Amino acid sequence: IVCLSMEGGAAASTPAALPYYVAFSQLLGLTLVAMTGAWLGLYRGGIAWESDLQFNAHPLCMVIGLVFLQGDALLVYRVFRNEAKRTTKVLHGLLHVFALVIALVGLVAVFDYHRKKGYTDLYSLHSWCGILVFVLYLVQWLAGFSFFLFPGAPFSLRSRYRPQHIFFGATIFLLSVGTALLGLKEALLFSLGDKYSAFEPEGVLANVLGLLLACFGGAVLYILTRADWKRPSQAEEQALSMDFKTLTEGDSPGSQ
Amino acid sequence: IVCLSMEGGAAASTPAALPYYVAFSQLLGLTLVAMTGAWLGLYRGGIAWESDLQFNAHPLCMVIGLVFLQGDALLVYRVFRNEAKRTTKVLHGLLHVFALVIALVGLVAVFDYHRKKGYTDLYSLHSWCGILVFVLYLVQWLAGFSFFLFPGAPFSLRSRYRPQHIFFGATIFLLSVGTALLGLKEALLFSLGDKYSAFEPEGVLANVLGLLLACFGGAVLYILTRADWKRPSQAEEQALSMDFKTLTEGDSPGSQ
Repeated sequence: IVCLSMEGGAAASTPAALPYYVAFSQLLGLTLVAMTGAWLGLYRGGIAWESDLQFNAHPLCMVIGLVFLQGDALLVYRVFRNEAKRTTKVLHGLLHVFALVIALVGLVAVFDYHRKKGYTDLYSLHSWCGILVFVLYLVQWLAGFSFFLFPGAPFSLRSRYRPQHIFFGATIFLLSVGTALLGLKEALLFSLGDKYSAFEPEGVLANVLGLLLACFGGAVLYILTRADWKRPSQAEEQALSMDFKTLTEGDSPGSQ
Repeated sequence: IVCLSMEGGAAASTPAALPYYVAFSQLLGLTLVAMTGAWLGLYRGGIAWESDLQFNAHPLCMVIGLVFLQGDALLVYRVFRNEAKRTTKVLHGLLHVFALVIALVGLVAVFDYHRKKGYTDLYSLHSWCGILVFVLYLVQWLAGFSFFLFPGAPFSLRSRYRPQHIFFGATIFLLSVGTALLGLKEALLFSLGDKYSAFEPEGVLANVLGLLLACFGGAVLYILTRADWKRPSQAEEQALSMDFKTLTEGDSPGSQ
């Protein structure tokens, strides 16, 4: 039944404008990562783990993990709209794992740096938002895994949790972008001081980086929310979900 | 025809949980405004136009106008779901006018303060985001007015612009919240300095205010995007729009 419904799915179709918007979002995302690297390399001495430069691993990891990769993980269902749902799900989960691991490295970098320097932890709004984002992201990943990838959840529970997963996914992504903006602002005000208002090159570069962060967030949100770009609900999905249910009904202690 | 279709609309119905979520969002919004007032009153000497306290009008106006009132304007279509569409539209437009005027006062306050003090304008990421938000908000208001309130736009144009209006409306609101967070962070780092990391009461209060700002943004976004809470498309709407079209087709030079 599964093979039949997979081959018998809706004909492959992609909205005409979607690839251009996706390409634009990827251009924004890659520029963002490159510009973060350029900022840290040109004005902050580069990156190294065993020195004062350890701090610089924090912004780079967070922009790569919690902004670029997290954003791309959300776009997977729009980009791979004609692949088997299962493949897309696994890719979505994998991208989020990469994002989570890279973010964890970024988190360790800043806590380790603070410890070595004797700085206070978690006093600023940026750090409060950051911890909130990280905890929500972890909970969302675990919930998503248990409901959608682990083959035990009943179909009715999946469809009830699905809209919540989508809303919180988008919200956590936007909060990540906002937290990155706060961190950028903090880094600028700490080190530039009065030079910020003299339009120093570093300040202007970082302001442009901040606007790009906001634009990347906006571009991902646009692709994600456009109604006619949603992944079409294919016959395959219902069949697959029902199939999982049938397969696991015997083993799973939750279902009777 | 208009009267008939207005009375013959769908039976009044409100989703059971919606009022609680709206009440929660309003509680958050009012707490936000009160807390901004408390912050400025307790730690920044209060508000006055003809003194150094003129600056303090800026955060208060922006939180009332571009966060609280703008957020509430977006919720109008969910809250007044059984009123005539026309009434709801006018209320939506009016709330946005109030928000715009209050934001303009907040904008004048900060530019006037900078001028008197001889400070540089528009160098920071907060100010760049702020100007972007204000221009987008003004353009969105003018576009919304011309398409939806001014009775000349053809029905086909309205339905094509509608999803764009909704997307940009939500995005501008979220960018407003993000810009407020950046401004709050700026105000804290400028005045608290090293005391911020000592968990001074002002820093903790402002961090809580920042989290409340993010939560208000999240609550409005949730109410706005929940699919089963969308305003039902009533027969009235089509009839009214068609009616406007017919009424104005004779006078409007654009349509032939």
